[in-house]
Amino acid sequence: MSRFLSKKHASLVPYVPGEQPRDMQYVKLNTNESPYPPSPAVIAAAAAEAGRMNLYCDPECTELRKKAAALYGVRPENILPVNGSDEILYLAFLAFGDEDHPIAFPDISYGFYPVYADLLHIPAHVVPLKKDLSIDPADYRGLNETIVLANPNAPTGRALSPEEVESIVASDPDRVVVIDEAYIDFGGVSCVPLIEKYENLLVTQTFSKSRSLAGGRLGFGIGCESLIRDLTTLKYSVNPYNVNRMTQAAGCAAIDDNDYYMENARTIIETREYTARALEELGFTVLPSKANFLFAESPAISGADLYAALKQRGVLVRHFAKDRIDNFTRITVGTREQMDILLDNIRAILNDKGGSPA
Amino acid sequence: MSRFLSKKHASLVPYVPGEQPRDMQYVKLNTNESPYPPSPAVIAAAAAEAGRMNLYCDPECTELRKKAAALYGVRPENILPVNGSDEILYLAFLAFGDEDHPIAFPDISYGFYPVYADLLHIPAHVVPLKKDLSIDPADYRGLNETIVLANPNAPTGRALSPEEVESIVASDPDRVVVIDEAYIDFGGVSCVPLIEKYENLLVTQTFSKSRSLAGGRLGFGIGCESLIRDLTTLKYSVNPYNVNRMTQAAGCAAIDDNDYYMENARTIIETREYTARALEELGFTVLPSKANFLFAESPAISGADLYAALKQRGVLVRHFAKDRIDNFTRITVGTREQMDILLDNIRAILNDKGGSPA
Repeated sequence: MSRFLSKKHASLVPYVPGEQPRDMQYVKLNTNESPYPPSPAVIAAAAAEAGRMNLYCDPECTELRKKAAALYGVRPENILPVNGSDEILYLAFLAFGDEDHPIAFPDISYGFYPVYADLLHIPAHVVPLKKDLSIDPADYRGLNETIVLANPNAPTGRALSPEEVESIVASDPDRVVVIDEAYIDFGGVSCVPLIEKYENLLVTQTFSKSRSLAGGRLGFGIGCESLIRDLTTLKYSVNPYNVNRMTQAAGCAAIDDNDYYMENARTIIETREYTARALEELGFTVLPSKANFLFAESPAISGADLYAALKQRGVLVRHFAKDRIDNFTRITVGTREQMDILLDNIRAILNDKGGSPA
Repeated sequence: MSRFLSKKHASLVPYVPGEQPRDMQYVKLNTNESPYPPSPAVIAAAAAEAGRMNLYCDPECTELRKKAAALYGVRPENILPVNGSDEILYLAFLAFGDEDHPIAFPDISYGFYPVYADLLHIPAHVVPLKKDLSIDPADYRGLNETIVLANPNAPTGRALSPEEVESIVASDPDRVVVIDEAYIDFGGVSCVPLIEKYENLLVTQTFSKSRSLAGGRLGFGIGCESLIRDLTTLKYSVNPYNVNRMTQAAGCAAIDDNDYYMENARTIIETREYTARALEELGFTVLPSKANFLFAESPAISGADLYAALKQRGVLVRHFAKDRIDNFTRITVGTREQMDILLDNIRAILNDKGGSPA
């Protein structure tokens, strides 16, 4: 840090995104991207908008909010589009966390939650997952704290039911509960319908995963009108034109093409189950996943070693050098062909170690 | 606000962007956009990238930083690309302002500075412009405060020379000076070369104005390596993938096509001078502008009345209901044809009032 940086940031450790190597072609299974490109209509809509970039984008995202409202079965006043769901999470921490409102989240979850708490000097209450790496809803009921839960959780892939989430939201109507549904389209059940009933529930979603827009940056906050108004006030105090023209157009077209994306999600679910069974046959323990990734460990090879050996062979997965999950690797579900390459390489690696057979 | 919003935001008044009306076709001279579209190569580059949106964008903006470094005559380590220059200004307030580091800026300047100070609870030192609405560098020398100055200033259009800026930067090497050069390509002289000499200088630029990318959202922070490292740490603690794929590609292509944009800037300067002379002939006082807008007042009609009369006639300009500048309107410089429509309408409005002749 320079000598100019405010002392309040002295101990800040930023989020580390999954590596984006540029030195060779990898089978890239490390950042939970979709292996499928955006639909032709999305590409065309974004491209058509490129010629109008000399004019500011609509800061209210009027069209996009209208379409997203229809998609999610809510009203436009319940929606705030953002530059990737990281932005809505940041705004939610900024809005609903402070010295008097600590924020509770699991010890093993999206790596950005502790970063936001650090950056904004919000006391963090880190709640351990259960031994099987699932969230125990009882840990969050009546906490009297703001709560952030990824559902399905990352990197475990485990999901809570809407009933379990509701038990948390209902237990303390005075505290906001944020449910981060980045991976909801791969088998989980969304809590969006609960926003009609609970004014303390904020659901966040992203088009990065199931809608093939990771590089387009589009996320949403969904909640009751007054919560969304708060978050909109903050957006207009940070970056009003946060979602650019091309992304707004791409988002609208992606909603129109929802069938294409839901079909892709179904394929990814099938490929996930295929890959999970194959890994189990190779001796892995695989957590039950409702996301577009698998979290798996093998008694035959450490998570760090598997990550390194796969990388050497041109397959990128993600390893977290972190207590309790150090032996796991997180594997994004790509195409069937990509998963077969992954599995072949794992077989070869285990064979080299004289371990489990092919 | 909802009952959940942190009390620290209780008095927050967000920035109000210029209106983006959707009810009729306006001659839109209210948000300082370029009247010229992006170059064909920029449109093609953004469109080509749309098909790869399923993959995350490069969080390091490697190519873009390399090209921007060449454009600005610095090294890639001196550059941080952002989602519009609002984002770099926000990060700079977050990084270099706190209870012990108040931030000084003019009473009449970009409306976001006081919003950022409010949001982040940084004491604001509001320094009045001189009577002629220019910045007095002497007011900022040896202040022992973080300083933010728009140069050229908005909405006045008046510019400081690099020597005047340097006198401020050099007067207090322990405090960061942010020079917001959003409008620098319309006749001002950039302070970017000074970053080699002063580690306390941060220059911000945007591609929204001279590079026709207002709706694409691309800005830059430019400073010594350690300042940029601080801001990058904060970016990675807020939104690592802040600049999407299409915008990174558009930015690279815009730099390759710099001649097109500088030619447009020259045309805008000519049109500005033409319009200024015509307004003076109509009895207006026009501040000397180095930006892509004019700030003008007439003894014959109030700023609010002129704004309203022009709007009724289909021409949008901007009026600030603010002490000292209430009688002015800010007029974006569009094409020559747009300015002739503006001038014809002003003539008609003044005639209706029985005022100054056509």
